[in-house]
Amino acid sequence: MEFLQANLIYLIPLLGLVGIIVMIVKSAWVSRQDAGDENMRSLAGHIAEGAMAFLKAEWKVLSYFVVIAAILLAWSGTLVETSSWVIAVSFVIGAVTSAFAGYIGMNIATKANVRTTQAARSGLAKALKVSFTGGTVMGLGVAGLAVLGMGALFIVFYQIYVVSTGASVNGLEMEKALEVLAGFSLGAESIALFARVGGGIYTKAADVGADLVGKVEAGIPEDDVRNPATIADNVGDNVGDVAGMGADLFGSYVATILATMVLGREIVSADSFGGIAPVLLPILIAGLGLIFSIVGAALVKVNDDQGNVQQALNLGNWSSILFTALASYFVVGWLLPDQLALRGVSFTSLDVFFAIVVGLIVGALMSIVTEYYTAMGKRPVGSIVKQSSTGHATNIIGGLSVGMESTAVPTIILAAGIITSYAFAGLYGVAIAAAGMMATTAMQLAIDAFGPIADNAGGIAEMSGLPKEVRERTDKLDAVGNTTAATGKGFAIASAALTALALFAAFVGIAGIDSIDLYKAPVLGALFIGAMIPFIFSSLAIAAVGRAAMSMVEEVRRQFREIPGIMEYKAKPEYDKCVAISTKASIREMILPGAIALIVPILVGFGFKGVFEDTSSAEILGGLLAGVTVSGVLLGMFQNNAGGAWDNAKKSFEAGVEINGKIEYKGSDAHKASVTGDTVGDPFKDTSGPSMNILIKLMSIVSLIIAPHISVNGGGNHVNVDLKKHIETEFTKAEQTQARPINPYIY
Amino acid sequence: MEFLQANLIYLIPLLGLVGIIVMIVKSAWVSRQDAGDENMRSLAGHIAEGAMAFLKAEWKVLSYFVVIAAILLAWSGTLVETSSWVIAVSFVIGAVTSAFAGYIGMNIATKANVRTTQAARSGLAKALKVSFTGGTVMGLGVAGLAVLGMGALFIVFYQIYVVSTGASVNGLEMEKALEVLAGFSLGAESIALFARVGGGIYTKAADVGADLVGKVEAGIPEDDVRNPATIADNVGDNVGDVAGMGADLFGSYVATILATMVLGREIVSADSFGGIAPVLLPILIAGLGLIFSIVGAALVKVNDDQGNVQQALNLGNWSSILFTALASYFVVGWLLPDQLALRGVSFTSLDVFFAIVVGLIVGALMSIVTEYYTAMGKRPVGSIVKQSSTGHATNIIGGLSVGMESTAVPTIILAAGIITSYAFAGLYGVAIAAAGMMATTAMQLAIDAFGPIADNAGGIAEMSGLPKEVRERTDKLDAVGNTTAATGKGFAIASAALTALALFAAFVGIAGIDSIDLYKAPVLGALFIGAMIPFIFSSLAIAAVGRAAMSMVEEVRRQFREIPGIMEYKAKPEYDKCVAISTKASIREMILPGAIALIVPILVGFGFKGVFEDTSSAEILGGLLAGVTVSGVLLGMFQNNAGGAWDNAKKSFEAGVEINGKIEYKGSDAHKASVTGDTVGDPFKDTSGPSMNILIKLMSIVSLIIAPHISVNGGGNHVNVDLKKHIETEFTKAEQTQARPINPYIY
Repeated sequence: MEFLQANLIYLIPLLGLVGIIVMIVKSAWVSRQDAGDENMRSLAGHIAEGAMAFLKAEWKVLSYFVVIAAILLAWSGTLVETSSWVIAVSFVIGAVTSAFAGYIGMNIATKANVRTTQAARSGLAKALKVSFTGGTVMGLGVAGLAVLGMGALFIVFYQIYVVSTGASVNGLEMEKALEVLAGFSLGAESIALFARVGGGIYTKAADVGADLVGKVEAGIPEDDVRNPATIADNVGDNVGDVAGMGADLFGSYVATILATMVLGREIVSADSFGGIAPVLLPILIAGLGLIFSIVGAALVKVNDDQGNVQQALNLGNWSSILFTALASYFVVGWLLPDQLALRGVSFTSLDVFFAIVVGLIVGALMSIVTEYYTAMGKRPVGSIVKQSSTGHATNIIGGLSVGMESTAVPTIILAAGIITSYAFAGLYGVAIAAAGMMATTAMQLAIDAFGPIADNAGGIAEMSGLPKEVRERTDKLDAVGNTTAATGKGFAIASAALTALALFAAFVGIAGIDSIDLYKAPVLGALFIGAMIPFIFSSLAIAAVGRAAMSMVEEVRRQFREIPGIMEYKAKPEYDKCVAISTKASIREMILPGAIALIVPILVGFGFKGVFEDTSSAEILGGLLAGVTVSGVLLGMFQNNAGGAWDNAKKSFEAGVEINGKIEYKGSDAHKASVTGDTVGDPFKDTSGPSMNILIKLMSIVSLIIAPHISVNGGGNHVNVDLKKHIETEFTKAEQTQARPINPYIY
Repeated sequence: MEFLQANLIYLIPLLGLVGIIVMIVKSAWVSRQDAGDENMRSLAGHIAEGAMAFLKAEWKVLSYFVVIAAILLAWSGTLVETSSWVIAVSFVIGAVTSAFAGYIGMNIATKANVRTTQAARSGLAKALKVSFTGGTVMGLGVAGLAVLGMGALFIVFYQIYVVSTGASVNGLEMEKALEVLAGFSLGAESIALFARVGGGIYTKAADVGADLVGKVEAGIPEDDVRNPATIADNVGDNVGDVAGMGADLFGSYVATILATMVLGREIVSADSFGGIAPVLLPILIAGLGLIFSIVGAALVKVNDDQGNVQQALNLGNWSSILFTALASYFVVGWLLPDQLALRGVSFTSLDVFFAIVVGLIVGALMSIVTEYYTAMGKRPVGSIVKQSSTGHATNIIGGLSVGMESTAVPTIILAAGIITSYAFAGLYGVAIAAAGMMATTAMQLAIDAFGPIADNAGGIAEMSGLPKEVRERTDKLDAVGNTTAATGKGFAIASAALTALALFAAFVGIAGIDSIDLYKAPVLGALFIGAMIPFIFSSLAIAAVGRAAMSMVEEVRRQFREIPGIMEYKAKPEYDKCVAISTKASIREMILPGAIALIVPILVGFGFKGVFEDTSSAEILGGLLAGVTVSGVLLGMFQNNAGGAWDNAKKSFEAGVEINGKIEYKGSDAHKASVTGDTVGDPFKDTSGPSMNILIKLMSIVSLIIAPHISVNGGGNHVNVDLKKHIETEFTKAEQTQARPINPYIY
């Protein structure tokens, strides 16, 4: 224990390293599996190549962005006392790590897909093992890189700015260390935004384009090799649902930890870790969550074709959550002093643990409610199915109504979560609740990523004409994957909301404002503008999918027209042309929405500096962020859930549904109406909806980064008024009670 | 001038009376017009009967509500010093007046429709005159009743609470007078909500139901006498677009004036009107706007069938706005002292005039932007038309994208308006800007109400088989009516937003809080809950239309099946059954959304009273209101504009549109896709979208009413700290400068 206490700061990145080592072992195992016959390998090769082509094109554009942003950051870092040019280095590392996390996911997914197909020839148990191990590789990669990266960088910056100068762990130098570390989060989150939006546009343009001509006009099934857009469609699953989502959760994970660390700095803590226990806690919990995700993942298996896949995933998920909750009870007790205080709110270490539990409960409830609104056989999807019988329009009205309704309970849960975690441990409670919720990100991501792998596996089975039972097994996995995709989105939006609030609180601290008063007209005006941004962002994303899908439709029609023999399997379609269209469109269309997220906070923060006498630009920016967050969370839930519900309403027709006493199947008019809803839902649930998470987080991080530049009242310093006296009192108290010895290591 | 100064308070209601007298004269003129042949009279009779049946059913339900609410109000009024049981009387008068305003509109509209049809037989000029005079009657009725009611009640309460007690015009007694007056606004707005939601559900259930079976299944044209739902459809135009809208604008008008009066009380004004000039200003401007609306209305005419109806309306509208702006320059200079101050913000009387101008400009810009997004031949509608060529789904995606995009510029205008009017004259500036914008409500409403009258006239022409040129003339009016309906909604949402902010500011004053700090977790939580309410409200409204339309479809199908000879004109359909379905459904379905708007503020205000140590329930309620307002404004614009754009995309096909070099007409696949969008847009633009206005205003008024019960820091009193001293200083200053003699009338 003595050793642990003294070296805790160095041990944390090791937890990340453990995750990465396990990942490498599991990745090697997946690679060793049989990749099937020549035909399957060739198809998988096309998909992998297309995916890499997209990544490379994306990286090229983003590298310009990263270089320019890094130069600006380095320059601006020299302008204020509480930042440094080093923030640019931190930013580049964050961006590269995020891109690398996306690459790991994409790489393993494009290997696991065909191996899952091959495994499905022998049985469901093996297919689940291969696909879920693929997902686990991605989950561990993302979480491992985050813990390792954040942990290692924190050591470096802490040494440079605090230890080497002998400064206070609550003072300006520590603020500087964390501000520089925020560069890592900014890098991660900005890559995430482009990856999510670009990937989302890619996958839906290909999907909608392939469906509209292939299924509807040419009458060939989904995933048919004759469809020129089919490879692009399967690539899309990987770049959107795998790489995009990986970068998204990597960003959330890092941002949550960062925000909690920034708030933790303000806590004057009489602990045995040199006073930085509240700063270390979030990253330590993340490390533990990573380890327990490995344990949970080992529990995910079925014995035979009759096995319940959903149950197996639930067992793994809940175990890892439970273990993490249990472990954090002990860790919190060990790490934190009995009494803490942040910005005038006092709380105990036990309160912090309760706040973590609140986070876990909110995450779980959000997933449950999301599942209710998007699952087949429940009232909401059933109502859409019923309304499909009176045509396209009533199907759409039904879905929009369900989507809007679905915001109610989650919002109440979220608000209750905010208020409760705040009541337990102030703003640190809100932040640590988010950190608790995100702790098992590795497991969440494993469950999420397994879905698109299974989906791809099914596509390969179809395209290579494997026996029917193979497709049936992959379909079984895919169906579970659809549910986990929806619940994963519920989880993602909840975590993003809490993260944004934590970042918001961190921003307030660094900007030196002590209120964001809606009663002031400029703040209220900014709230309106902020709330509008998710609308325009969604509009751009949805319209981009529409445009890209139309180009795809035209290209597919052209190939059918100009290349004779495609329909008779005599000529091979030009898959690469379709891949190129999706790639180009998505790269081009991701720029404007991304720019809005990055530039608006800068414009508001600097543009209104000194304009109003009694309202600082930091406070106005705070109003903007509140608007973005509240409207982004609601629009995100609305779009994700409406999309998910439409999707499953359509799927309900595959097994046949009873409407007004008549069983309706695929091909009926009601089914056609349900396809309309599904197509409308596609950009909702896979492009604009999930981008809302990143939008709100990214705008908060940008604000946090510029906070020292627009700070008032001496910036973060204001919270340290009478700090020295406070510290002395606290430490004397601690000595008197002899509760825990003060570790002499750092002082 | 001396006389005016002494008796201004008594002269204001007279302006309202002038409006009502002109209305009676014009109403009599409409009644004297020829109502056509027996057949037309019979059809018009059915419509009028159906409309009255709805009103009576609605009134019956609402009378229970009014009685219960009045009892609760009377009881609660006795609990605090700054209210009284008299508020219940004020509430009942407001409710009855609002219902009466709706009745006036409905009554004249159901008379003017058939007379417009008859007039259209002789020419466009006459048809415009009859239909627009009908609209004017409604506009003058609404505005006249508002000015008369508010003016007269203010005199009474002012005499009772202030003059008779010799109290200060800035003190608690004046606050009490205005709090009691707020009951009038609450009565008006709650009736408005039910009328708007109920009317909106009624009209769209009938419309969608009539279209789905009549046009699509039976293949008969719109407004065909053989369609059992056609009468219900025409009744719907009257109960939704006329009575609902009338009650809506009556509520806005009253709420805006009230909010400005409440803020005006806090201004210590060294004027010549006993210090109540800032309180009288909004109602005086409303009275002037009413008079200039009469002038403007006289300018609306065309000479022959080639006349430009839109231009004629614009001339009338802009004249009344310009005259009002000009008049307010002089009125503001005459009424207000040179220097004023509210809650620490100082401004001049000229600043107040500029704030009014800001309001007028914001209103005009909002209308222009709304027109751009919903007009035929412009880029947004054109993009939807193009996307109709690839099917139902892309048409919907296009419309959703346009709707979301359309929030951007208006939000920026609105935010700029808030900030600018605040910069001119503080919160009083924001409120008076709203009052300025609403001043010409009579004219706005005349223009708005003429649309549904023309629409009905066309329906009657069709149903009674009049010659083609009659329908062509009414169609010309109807087309203009569609544009004015869209711009009217843009105007309504802008005025509602400003009104809500003014009410918000008034609430803050009476509740005694001096900030609404988003940085506090409970306030932020409430912001989320508040922002969610417009979503659940919209969901309920849309779903209600869906359900009611399905019952309507089943009834129409039943009649076609069970009553032989309908299609051959041998049997008369049972129109009344369809009317009854729409009536019952709308009355039943309006209750839950209405209850949410009324109850949530009460729950939050009283439920969180004393729960959090440093955050009062009033501040939490403030966060809730901000959330409702920001999300309601955005969702309202999104739904109104998407609906309007879909509607006109469909209409574009009537004249033929070029898509990819091919001209597409009615009946093509692209046109069918556009009909889907139009049907989805119906509940958006006519039920849930326009209800957003009332939702945000009503929740603000309810909060204002309960403010004295949940007030902190001694409530409204806190703004009067050192009031006496302040008044003395100001008055001494005024005396010294001899700027204007203090009127001894009241002191």
